Amino acid sequence: MTHFRYLSFLTDYGLEDGFVAACHGVSARIAPHATIIDVTHLVPPGDVRRGAAVLAQTVPYLPPAVHVAVVDPGVGTARRGVAVAAGDSVFIGPDNGVLSWAVTSAGGAARAFSLTNRDLWLSQVTPTFHGRDIFMPVAAHLATDAGLAAAGAEIDVADLVTLPAPERLVRDFTAAGEVLTVDRFGNVQLTITGADAAEIGVLPGGTVLVQFGHRQLALPYRDTFGAVATGELVAYADSAGLVSVAVNGGNAAQRLGLPPGARISIAAIPQTIHR
Amino acid sequence: MTHFRYLSFLTDYGLEDGFVAACHGVSARIAPHATIIDVTHLVPPGDVRRGAAVLAQTVPYLPPAVHVAVVDPGVGTARRGVAVAAGDSVFIGPDNGVLSWAVTSAGGAARAFSLTNRDLWLSQVTPTFHGRDIFMPVAAHLATDAGLAAAGAEIDVADLVTLPAPERLVRDFTAAGEVLTVDRFGNVQLTITGADAAEIGVLPGGTVLVQFGHRQLALPYRDTFGAVATGELVAYADSAGLVSVAVNGGNAAQRLGLPPGARISIAAIPQTIHR
Amino acid sequence: MTHFRYLSFLTDYGLEDGFVAACHGVSARIAPHATIIDVTHLVPPGDVRRGAAVLAQTVPYLPPAVHVAVVDPGVGTARRGVAVAAGDSVFIGPDNGVLSWAVTSAGGAARAFSLTNRDLWLSQVTPTFHGRDIFMPVAAHLATDAGLAAAGAEIDVADLVTLPAPERLVRDFTAAGEVLTVDRFGNVQLTITGADAAEIGVLPGGTVLVQFGHRQLALPYRDTFGAVATGELVAYADSAGLVSVAVNGGNAAQRLGLPPGARISIAAIPQTIHR
Repeated sequence: MTHFRYLSFLTDYGLEDGFVAACHGVSARIAPHATIIDVTHLVPPGDVRRGAAVLAQTVPYLPPAVHVAVVDPGVGTARRGVAVAAGDSVFIGPDNGVLSWAVTSAGGAARAFSLTNRDLWLSQVTPTFHGRDIFMPVAAHLATDAGLAAAGAEIDVADLVTLPAPERLVRDFTAAGEVLTVDRFGNVQLTITGADAAEIGVLPGGTVLVQFGHRQLALPYRDTFGAVATGELVAYADSAGLVSVAVNGGNAAQRLGLPPGARISIAAIPQTIHR
Repeated sequence: MTHFRYLSFLTDYGLEDGFVAACHGVSARIAPHATIIDVTHLVPPGDVRRGAAVLAQTVPYLPPAVHVAVVDPGVGTARRGVAVAAGDSVFIGPDNGVLSWAVTSAGGAARAFSLTNRDLWLSQVTPTFHGRDIFMPVAAHLATDAGLAAAGAEIDVADLVTLPAPERLVRDFTAAGEVLTVDRFGNVQLTITGADAAEIGVLPGGTVLVQFGHRQLALPYRDTFGAVATGELVAYADSAGLVSVAVNGGNAAQRLGLPPGARISIAAIPQTIHR
Repeated sequence: MTHFRYLSFLTDYGLEDGFVAACHGVSARIAPHATIIDVTHLVPPGDVRRGAAVLAQTVPYLPPAVHVAVVDPGVGTARRGVAVAAGDSVFIGPDNGVLSWAVTSAGGAARAFSLTNRDLWLSQVTPTFHGRDIFMPVAAHLATDAGLAAAGAEIDVADLVTLPAPERLVRDFTAAGEVLTVDRFGNVQLTITGADAAEIGVLPGGTVLVQFGHRQLALPYRDTFGAVATGELVAYADSAGLVSVAVNGGNAAQRLGLPPGARISIAAIPQTIHR
């Protein structure tokens, strides 16, 4: 018997309409004991990859919960909805990969169910708002009294849609990857980890050669962006453990023209101190 | 004796200032047991009609509550504040129509009171922030222990300001109306209902002729925008039961230049399959 | 022994990433009994002064709480984190002045502690996300069972970093100051108080001479912006007690080109009615 005090909720619904509130209301009616933690509702419309990245980086800091994530450009079409048990949580959303990175970071899918039990849905389901009509009511029922198996037909976890892992290749003295996300501050988060950087000899206090497009930049590699002067570029391992490029007090994504998906590589610059 | 576990809260206050939080704080001091569901605070400044539409479409999914809606370009002038009982909820806000569509959708006003009882207000009332100083404290008192009649002098429900119902005219084979709202995705929601469409012979799987300005478009009419290819226009009955025009994966309002208030009509295109 | 039902939370983290939610999750794990009131997360990146102003104007309406404010361009550098007792609340954040105006408005700092007790932090602290890793867990512990002294080493309240008080000078018939904030509506809030205005003879119903740059404007001074016709400029004492310039139904900051920090003065215009 599952029972959760918390739901988390991530969507691309935006905040200017009543979509998020309608879902909160559905949860309040079914699971009045539950508290909802809104992860974000500003995922760019339909950007499954961005939703997956934000969810995976946030869930490790959330309490055990039913995590609902709805970035669902295929709503109302053949794609199925799923409930996935992973770690001490349950993940609910469309089976399009938006859950996959978070499920992996929670230890991988233990069991999975297709959301086929209409008893847990709202009595009237519209084809374009499954967040309100299916995903949230199922989550609220699972948080309250329904066992996970009540969600519907069990499916093979190997059949779940997964996004390809963020691309990165570590070789010799170079780590190649791409821009995973750009945050509010314009900090450019790469798919390359801080551990990757260390492996190729890029260590805090040193200098890193950053290459993208036709540009090469030698940047200080530090513990934090605050270690360089205001307005200067810097690279560092960020709060999610990923190499990021920032401008202290500025917007690196704008300055460098680096959107999500841009290919980028880093390399150590040999120390010449002893020469 | 009213007693509500939930408040809902809709405003045009935005999220960059502390206005919404101050109102949450006022409620927490008076009604610490109550949970607030934020409907939206991004109603365009002073757009009473937009606030009314979002509220009316969201309230059916919220639990019984004291619903506070403050889109109030006339704050501090002669317009009165009101508390209106409708269905199993109470609606509080300026008497300028912002509540009216939601009250109608909740079954119509049963009783109404002018907010004249200063005992329920904050001790100091500023002329420009009645959300914080009057509407929210009254709502919190009504949610806690005060009966509705404590709000102030009873008024005739027929005297409440109501917005004209969204304009639509169904005749022969045409339904004429206007753009009611544009949502975050750029989906263009009309005042014409899915039932209107069915009445004039526009049914899922068919084609609908959409006319606005000097343009005519023959669009597929489907159950969901996901039924057409990415980038294509489509019409459908949306999650509020209203005919909407969308671009799958795109922004219809931008593509077609259709803002709220634009006049538009739809008509069935006779099936010529059997010819 | 402190024990708080409420936390408040103000940052410049924005709402498009999972930063705010991660902090909510940290609090939920440590202090599940606590309710968080989000003040705003849309402080312009690194704008300590704006954060300080919003916090100070909002806190008087919040219940007793642990108020967490993180606008922290120096995160990960030498600046310390502090917990400050003031009034019936505790304020937590970087010691860069962001707390200072709110602490003053709460009655001034009674005691202060440097956040040196790592037992209250997350076990792993990153150099760029002290909101998640230090400030929020410390706040949640203080809200739950830890006494304020558990935060770390006591420091002299006189050593706390304070922002200079908003500049204003009242002399003879003129009050000089600057633009403190611009709100969502484009209302221009000055550092000059309504009491200052009264002192120099600017009273509701009269006319005020507003001077900035090379411009002079004679504006009606009223109780509320709603007292003038739509589209007209007006000055008034706003809901925080500060003189503001607005356009009824419009955006005064845009119309007048008045950003935060712009120097401005007001003066009474002698009544000539009796001449």
